[in-house]
Amino acid sequence: MITLYGDVTKTRANRCSWMLNEIGIEHGREPLAFRPGDAKPPEFLALNPNGKCPTLIDGDFVLFESLAINLYLARRYGGLLGPQTPQEDALMTQWSLWVATEVEKPLLLTSAVRYLFDPCTPDGEEEAITMKKLARPWSVLDGHLKDREFILGDRLTVADINVAAVMHFIPIAGIDISPWPAMKRWLESCLARPGAIDLASVRFRVPRPPSSRDIFAMFL
Amino acid sequence: MITLYGDVTKTRANRCSWMLNEIGIEHGREPLAFRPGDAKPPEFLALNPNGKCPTLIDGDFVLFESLAINLYLARRYGGLLGPQTPQEDALMTQWSLWVATEVEKPLLLTSAVRYLFDPCTPDGEEEAITMKKLARPWSVLDGHLKDREFILGDRLTVADINVAAVMHFIPIAGIDISPWPAMKRWLESCLARPGAIDLASVRFRVPRPPSSRDIFAMFL
Repeated sequence: MITLYGDVTKTRANRCSWMLNEIGIEHGREPLAFRPGDAKPPEFLALNPNGKCPTLIDGDFVLFESLAINLYLARRYGGLLGPQTPQEDALMTQWSLWVATEVEKPLLLTSAVRYLFDPCTPDGEEEAITMKKLARPWSVLDGHLKDREFILGDRLTVADINVAAVMHFIPIAGIDISPWPAMKRWLESCLARPGAIDLASVRFRVPRPPSSRDIFAMFL
Repeated sequence: MITLYGDVTKTRANRCSWMLNEIGIEHGREPLAFRPGDAKPPEFLALNPNGKCPTLIDGDFVLFESLAINLYLARRYGGLLGPQTPQEDALMTQWSLWVATEVEKPLLLTSAVRYLFDPCTPDGEEEAITMKKLARPWSVLDGHLKDREFILGDRLTVADINVAAVMHFIPIAGIDISPWPAMKRWLESCLARPGAIDLASVRFRVPRPPSSRDIFAMFL
């Protein structure tokens, strides 16, 4: 029995709910979410000592890190969503690490100043810095997708789901990605999938830190 | 034929050279390194459009992202360094993503203010912020290693190599990790392995950005 821990409107469990939806596998959900400072239940900390969602339980096997959970589900239960060769497995892992290290934090900061912070401050100096950082990996992805429908070629895989799931804040925060048309076409087509429904709704706001330095420190 | 691109004294190729050393597999090395603003050779950009090292070539297969390269090498050629079951594979991927998202950037910033920046400014406000961030994941890893010799239990695997390789700046920058004794014992034992030799030498300095905000923005 598979159980996904994490509220899909407030945690990265929405990334894993997309994968579970695509696979169509029966599973349970425990919609936990913690605010900063919340005491975390000992029985949850026993499962994941990081005290973070999502956490996945498959029988007696426990896994954390949203992108690792999706890679596991794809390899184990995903059929063609998962790797068919060692090379495909390596590329799916590569793109998952790439989006986590090159894209996730600057994109989250951009989304915060444009949308998540209360008050939000779009088009400020912070956004200019992060958009300059994002231009580099986005040009790489755009170039890669110029002659490919999906990241691995002609079929949807966990590589698309992990990269697009990290990038789901782009439409929510109204970030203009028209300079990267192949990436834009691909992202819109991925996020329009019925399975990605939980990524469309984000229902939280975060107080805006007092200084520009504190904003950058928040997303380190 | 396997070739590793990247100067081990200036790029994260030192992470992959460790894995190649542990496996003991024959391979070639191309010690490339680029400084900011350097023009990158078109033939290298054709291999890795990110223009970053390390990049691995195995026959006609090309891979980037240092931790993904190590996972591939371990799965393909690493014997017991790699996964023996789907669960082990998932845990190796999980810990690799965990160290990249929870540890890498705050640790790099701490190492920069203590060691890599010219001038360096240890024990400043920036270090206090990053050490507070690092205390959380390090307590998790310390707790995990209290009753385990290695991350997956009783044998060295790619999980140890990837996590320890990201954390190799700790001794170089003289960061005190004595509050996490199990992690300290484990890290020292990993980095003392003959295969990890390239991680001991870091031969570059970076100009210190003018403001605290710019320091944090640099590592986003």
